[in-house]
Amino acid sequence: MNKLIDMMEKYADLAVKVGVNIQKGQTLIINADIATAPFVRLVTKKAYETGAKLVHIEWTDEEVTRIRYDIALDESFHHFPSWRAEMMEKAFQEGAAMLAITSVNPDLLKGVDANKIANLQKAAGEATKAYRKMVMADKISWSIVAVPSKGWSAKVFPELSEQEQEVKLWEAIFHATRANLDDPVQAWIEHKDKLSEKVAFLNDNKFKALHYKAKGTDLTIELPEKHVWIGPESTNENGVSFIANMPTEEVFTTPLKSGVNGKVTSSKPLNYGGNLIEDFSLTFENGRIVSYEAEEGYETLQKLIETDEGSHYLGEVALVPHDSPISNTNLIFYNTLFDENASHHLAIGNAYSFALEGGKQMSDEELEAAGANASITHVDFMIGSSDMDIDGITQEGKRVPLFRQGNWA
Amino acid sequence: MNKLIDMMEKYADLAVKVGVNIQKGQTLIINADIATAPFVRLVTKKAYETGAKLVHIEWTDEEVTRIRYDIALDESFHHFPSWRAEMMEKAFQEGAAMLAITSVNPDLLKGVDANKIANLQKAAGEATKAYRKMVMADKISWSIVAVPSKGWSAKVFPELSEQEQEVKLWEAIFHATRANLDDPVQAWIEHKDKLSEKVAFLNDNKFKALHYKAKGTDLTIELPEKHVWIGPESTNENGVSFIANMPTEEVFTTPLKSGVNGKVTSSKPLNYGGNLIEDFSLTFENGRIVSYEAEEGYETLQKLIETDEGSHYLGEVALVPHDSPISNTNLIFYNTLFDENASHHLAIGNAYSFALEGGKQMSDEELEAAGANASITHVDFMIGSSDMDIDGITQEGKRVPLFRQGNWA
Ligand SMILES: [Zn+2]
Ligand SMILES: [Zn+2]
Ligand SMILES: [Zn+2]
Ligand SMILES: [Zn+2]
Repeated sequence: MNKLIDMMEKYADLAVKVGVNIQKGQTLIINADIATAPFVRLVTKKAYETGAKLVHIEWTDEEVTRIRYDIALDESFHHFPSWRAEMMEKAFQEGAAMLAITSVNPDLLKGVDANKIANLQKAAGEATKAYRKMVMADKISWSIVAVPSKGWSAKVFPELSEQEQEVKLWEAIFHATRANLDDPVQAWIEHKDKLSEKVAFLNDNKFKALHYKAKGTDLTIELPEKHVWIGPESTNENGVSFIANMPTEEVFTTPLKSGVNGKVTSSKPLNYGGNLIEDFSLTFENGRIVSYEAEEGYETLQKLIETDEGSHYLGEVALVPHDSPISNTNLIFYNTLFDENASHHLAIGNAYSFALEGGKQMSDEELEAAGANASITHVDFMIGSSDMDIDGITQEGKRVPLFRQGNWA
Repeated sequence: MNKLIDMMEKYADLAVKVGVNIQKGQTLIINADIATAPFVRLVTKKAYETGAKLVHIEWTDEEVTRIRYDIALDESFHHFPSWRAEMMEKAFQEGAAMLAITSVNPDLLKGVDANKIANLQKAAGEATKAYRKMVMADKISWSIVAVPSKGWSAKVFPELSEQEQEVKLWEAIFHATRANLDDPVQAWIEHKDKLSEKVAFLNDNKFKALHYKAKGTDLTIELPEKHVWIGPESTNENGVSFIANMPTEEVFTTPLKSGVNGKVTSSKPLNYGGNLIEDFSLTFENGRIVSYEAEEGYETLQKLIETDEGSHYLGEVALVPHDSPISNTNLIFYNTLFDENASHHLAIGNAYSFALEGGKQMSDEELEAAGANASITHVDFMIGSSDMDIDGITQEGKRVPLFRQGNWA
C-alpha cells in the first residue's frame, strides 16, 4: 500500500511538472470528483511546492450528478449556468492552467433518458463554447490524467474484489503513463522525442489523403492543404510547453471536412455520456455521415450525431501504433483517454485549430475556409486493430505505406 | 444507524423547505466540505424533488485548505480570484438561493501563521464584498445548517470514540434544530411565532439604549433612531420568506456605531479563522474599541480588530435567553452558529442593513448617516451568562427590565 502511495506521488509530480507544467505564480484549476480527493491533495501539494499562487478545485460528485438525472425536471437539462462558464473564461484569460482528473464510472448514466443527456450536453456545449475554444486552441496549459474510482475499477476488473479492483487499475494507469518507471520525467522526454520523429516525417510528406483498410473499413480521408501533424507536446500562447494527455501515444491532425468518403467500423466500445455504443459503423459521402449502424447503443449514437450540423463531420484523425504500453495491457479501459491511445481513432465534431498552419489565429470563417469542421462536440472513437493497413497518398497520387498490420510500416 | 439517516433526511428537508425555502425553477447553491457529501446528497435530492432547476455545489476540502496554508508562498494569501466572486454575484443576480453547510474543524488552522489567515480574510473580504452585501441585505434566500465533521466532533466530544463522537454531535444538532421532533416543520412555525412576539414588543418600545450588567461587563449600547429588531424569519426581495440560521434563538438589531460605551467581557471562546480567542474583554468609547485584553489568542483578536476601520466598531446586538434547546445541551459547540444562539452576543464589524427601517434600499452613505457600521468582516462573540441583567432605556430615560439572570424578565 505504501508503494501505491509512492507511485501516486510520482504520478502527481508528473501531472504538475510534465502535464500542465505549472509556472511560478500561476493559478491551477483542477477538475475532479470528490472521490479522488487523496490524489487531488497530492497534486495540490506538488503544485504549491512548485510555486503555484492558487490551486482552485472544481469538485464534482458522481452521485449528485446521478441524483439530478433521476429527479430533476426536464427543463433542468436545457440549462447550463452562464456564470460558471464565465468564471472559467475569466480564469483562463488571467492565465490559469487546467488539470482535469478523469475517474468517471462508465456505467454512471446507465438507464438515464438519452434525451436528458443530449440536452444537457448541448446546453453545456453552447454555454461553455468560449472557454473550451481557449482550451482547444492551447491558449492555456492543460492536461488530463486519470484516477480510479470504484465504479470505473469495477467495470475494468469485474472479476476481482473491490479492493483489488482499485489497486489493479492504479497499476494499469501507472504502467500506461510510465509513472512506474524509475525516472518517469526522463522517460517522457524520450517518448516525446520518438513521437516527434513521426510528426516530422508526416509533416515533411504533406500527404493529400490517407487510405484506411481493415475488416469493415475502407475509408479515404483527405487532409486540408494547411494541415499540421501534432505530437504529444503542445505550447500555450506564452510559449510554455505542456502535455495535454497523459498517457498519449498518438500523432494527429485535422481532416478536410468535405473530404471523407467510404465506410469505417469501430474497433472498441465508445462511452458517450455514460452510455456505451458498440460495434458501430459510419458511412461518409463528401465528409458527411450519410448512414450509420450500431449493434448496441444506436439511440445514443444518433443523439451524438444529431447534436448539431458539425457533429455529422469529422474533426480529428489520429494515428496510434497497435504496440504501446497501453495496448499491451490488453485492457479495455472504458475511458477515452486510454482507449484512444491504444488505437487509431477519429473524432466526430470540432477540429483543433492548432492542427492547421496559423490556425490558432484564424477566425471561425477562416477555419471553415481552410477545411476545418466546427461543432460544440468532439468525441473520439476507436478504429484501429492488428489487421489495419494505412497508406499515405501524396499530392502526385503515389501511395506510401504508413501502417501495416497495425504498426508503423 | 438507520434512525440517524432518517433524522438526516428530516434535517435536509427542513434545510430545503424551511431554511432556504427553495422555489420551483430556482437554482440552489450549496457551500459544503466534501466530507459532508452524504448529507449534501440528501439536500440535493430534496431540492430537486421540490422543483429546483439546478443544484450547484461549491465544494471545499479542509485538507486542501490546510495544505495551502502550510506550503503556498506568502503572496498566495494576498489573492482571492475575482472570477469566483463574480460567479457568485451573477448567480445571486439571477435569483439563486444559497445554503451553507458548516462543518469546520475548530482546530483546522492551529499553528498557522496568523498573518496568512488575516491577509486571506482581508483579500477575500474585499473581493467578495459585492455578493456578500447581497446576502447581508437579504436580496436572496440563504440559510446556514451544520453537519459534523471528524475534527469538529472530536473537539466537542474529546472523551468519546471516533464513531461515537460523530453520532453524538449529530444528535446534539438534531436537538438544537428541533429536527428530532415528530413534526419539525410545525415546531419551527411555533418557534418563529414565539420569537416574533418578542420582536413586536421591542419594536413597539423603540428603546434609546440597552444597558448590560454582569460580572466583567458594564456596557451601554445606544440604538439608531431607525433600528428595527429582527426575528428568525427573513424575506428576500421577491417576498419569499426564509430562515437564515438553523438553529436560531436570537432577536437582533443594529447598534448605533458611535453610541457604545463601557466594557464587555466574553462568556464563551471565539473561534476566528480556526484559532480560539478566550476570556477576552473589549472597552468602548463613543463606539470605538479603545482597548482590549485576552487570556488566550490575543494576537488573533488583534488581527480581527485591525482588519479595517470598521472592525473597531460593533455591527450587531443580539438577545438570546439563557434557557433554550441549545443552551440546555450545555455543550460548547466551537461553532458560532450554535454558540451564538445559546447566548446574548454582539458582532464586531459590518451591520445588517435590513435591521434599519428602509435600510435595504440605502446607499453606503445613507447607511453611515443612519448610524450603521461598515466593514469587510462580521464576527459574533458571546457575552451572555446566567447572571446577566439587561435594561431597556426609553427615549424618556426610563429603565425597563428586559432580562434578569439570563432570561426574559
Ligand atoms: Zn486523439
Ligand atoms: Zn480527440
Ligand atoms: Zn446574531
Ligand atoms: Zn452575527
